[in-house]
Amino acid sequence: MTPLYPPFTIGVDLGGTNTVFAIVDSVGHILVRDSFPTATATIEEWADTLALKVTSMIKNAQLEDQIIGIGIGAPCANAITGSIEAATDLPWPSPIPLGTMVQARLKLPTTVTNDANAAAIGEMMYGAAAGMKNFIVLTLGTGVGAGIVCDGHLLSGTRGFAGELGHVTFPFAADRPCGCGRTGCLQTVASAKGILTTTRHLLNVSSEPSTLRNIPDDRLTAKLVCEAARQGDKLAKEVYDYTGHCLGKAAAEFAAFTDPEAIILFGGVANAGDLLLIPMMESFRENALHLYRDRVRFLISGLNGADAAVLGAASLPHLHS
Amino acid sequence: MTPLYPPFTIGVDLGGTNTVFAIVDSVGHILVRDSFPTATATIEEWADTLALKVTSMIKNAQLEDQIIGIGIGAPCANAITGSIEAATDLPWPSPIPLGTMVQARLKLPTTVTNDANAAAIGEMMYGAAAGMKNFIVLTLGTGVGAGIVCDGHLLSGTRGFAGELGHVTFPFAADRPCGCGRTGCLQTVASAKGILTTTRHLLNVSSEPSTLRNIPDDRLTAKLVCEAARQGDKLAKEVYDYTGHCLGKAAAEFAAFTDPEAIILFGGVANAGDLLLIPMMESFRENALHLYRDRVRFLISGLNGADAAVLGAASLPHLHS
Repeated sequence: MTPLYPPFTIGVDLGGTNTVFAIVDSVGHILVRDSFPTATATIEEWADTLALKVTSMIKNAQLEDQIIGIGIGAPCANAITGSIEAATDLPWPSPIPLGTMVQARLKLPTTVTNDANAAAIGEMMYGAAAGMKNFIVLTLGTGVGAGIVCDGHLLSGTRGFAGELGHVTFPFAADRPCGCGRTGCLQTVASAKGILTTTRHLLNVSSEPSTLRNIPDDRLTAKLVCEAARQGDKLAKEVYDYTGHCLGKAAAEFAAFTDPEAIILFGGVANAGDLLLIPMMESFRENALHLYRDRVRFLISGLNGADAAVLGAASLPHLHS
Repeated sequence: MTPLYPPFTIGVDLGGTNTVFAIVDSVGHILVRDSFPTATATIEEWADTLALKVTSMIKNAQLEDQIIGIGIGAPCANAITGSIEAATDLPWPSPIPLGTMVQARLKLPTTVTNDANAAAIGEMMYGAAAGMKNFIVLTLGTGVGAGIVCDGHLLSGTRGFAGELGHVTFPFAADRPCGCGRTGCLQTVASAKGILTTTRHLLNVSSEPSTLRNIPDDRLTAKLVCEAARQGDKLAKEVYDYTGHCLGKAAAEFAAFTDPEAIILFGGVANAGDLLLIPMMESFRENALHLYRDRVRFLISGLNGADAAVLGAASLPHLHS
């Protein structure tokens, strides 16, 4: 059995469908995990359910005095206020004073932040950014977010909205409308939805044979495109080539802000690995200012895929300990 | 006479032509200033001259025990190493271990950073950013630089190269070659040279009458364009309108990185004031993500024009006191 290293924290990943929670040791080993469906009738019911299940989990593990805090990663959560502000994919009205509600029930210091910031701290504590003080985690999922660590510090900003790099706009996406009401945002290309937009476009304009043509349009997913690319489908590979090149151009601009040591890809789309990383590195080298060229490492998340979000959340209490 | 507030610092602005130095109190009053031509035969001679003159200045002011440190702002200076790295407009070979050399001679803690970072700290200590923890200073001069303060911390990055925002590229400048070897950098538009490029372009493509047409091309300066705009010259105003709009678009992207409370314009080009600020604010409002729209203030440097650089330098020791 893996040895465990106290102190322990509770990580909570509040997702649109499920709430996953776990007891995690100080180096990122998960001792025990559980989950329940997020869609409770009220946020109070959600908090009560979480408190009940976490208390029982801690008791069963006989760790009552060894938990230093709770970290919660949630969509649109604001680290400064500890609240969820205007999350569109949660079943309750916003704002939700999540930190206060959970801390009142569990009597443990509770830290709340958005998914991307949790990912960044998780990578620094247990993952690909171990020992780094300057890096950017790009979360490529339903949308695109970022957690920026500069000089050892996770950037927050005036109101907690630092790192909205999914909404930096680029000429390569200028014709793509974004959910934010503007056009050209990075997330219209580098999210799972962006991958599908690119795929549909290529299926339309190219006559290249592709196994993707056998999949009904409403069943096409970024994951299927990735699998096709892995099996050598040329059109599917072109989708990831294009996406990686766009990410490399974006990274070339991002480097000028915080002079990072590494840029780390996190989330479902990042599972494509080298399919994205190789064109990304090429394009970064072509586009970056000489000061940054050959100075930035490109990495895939070091957090175990299925547990990445809950590990990110579990890392948060260490920031303040 | 203005009352003075101890402790005092020495500010040194190492410019391509002159080295300006001053004794400054803790709220940004200059007690006494002096200067000498930068172009000494060797860097050792420069450091000896500075040491001699500063020692004598401190003695004459009877402040021997009240100086807490020396701050030096210099082109291409790296805050992490305290060295000047590859400065093209200084008369000595790089790298120059400036911090070590000055500290050894004056026996006072010496902090070195680049002009843009010195400007940012100066604005925070004595200027337009007093009391702010999140802001970006854009220095608009021969080139364009930036000092980014996020969560009260001046961003440095892995090797001290954070904040090279003059080299973020934009479609509005895509046809403009930059000294860095790429095209589309913000500084090809928003520097003094960028103002001239825009002016020459408009003089060529427009038939608008303009007093600028009476100035021989080799005597045209950004300052003259600014004066013409102030006197109502339509073409000259269009130059600043265009430049301000570009800066507003750039600011809309920059906001997504650090969620700043304010963006502050500093340097010679910023003297245009409202000629730049008004189109900049309009364009920011049109282009920024809703999270930042109407949330960022746009300001002109609060440091007295002629003394801004030396005040920025003088503010550096306070960072560490």
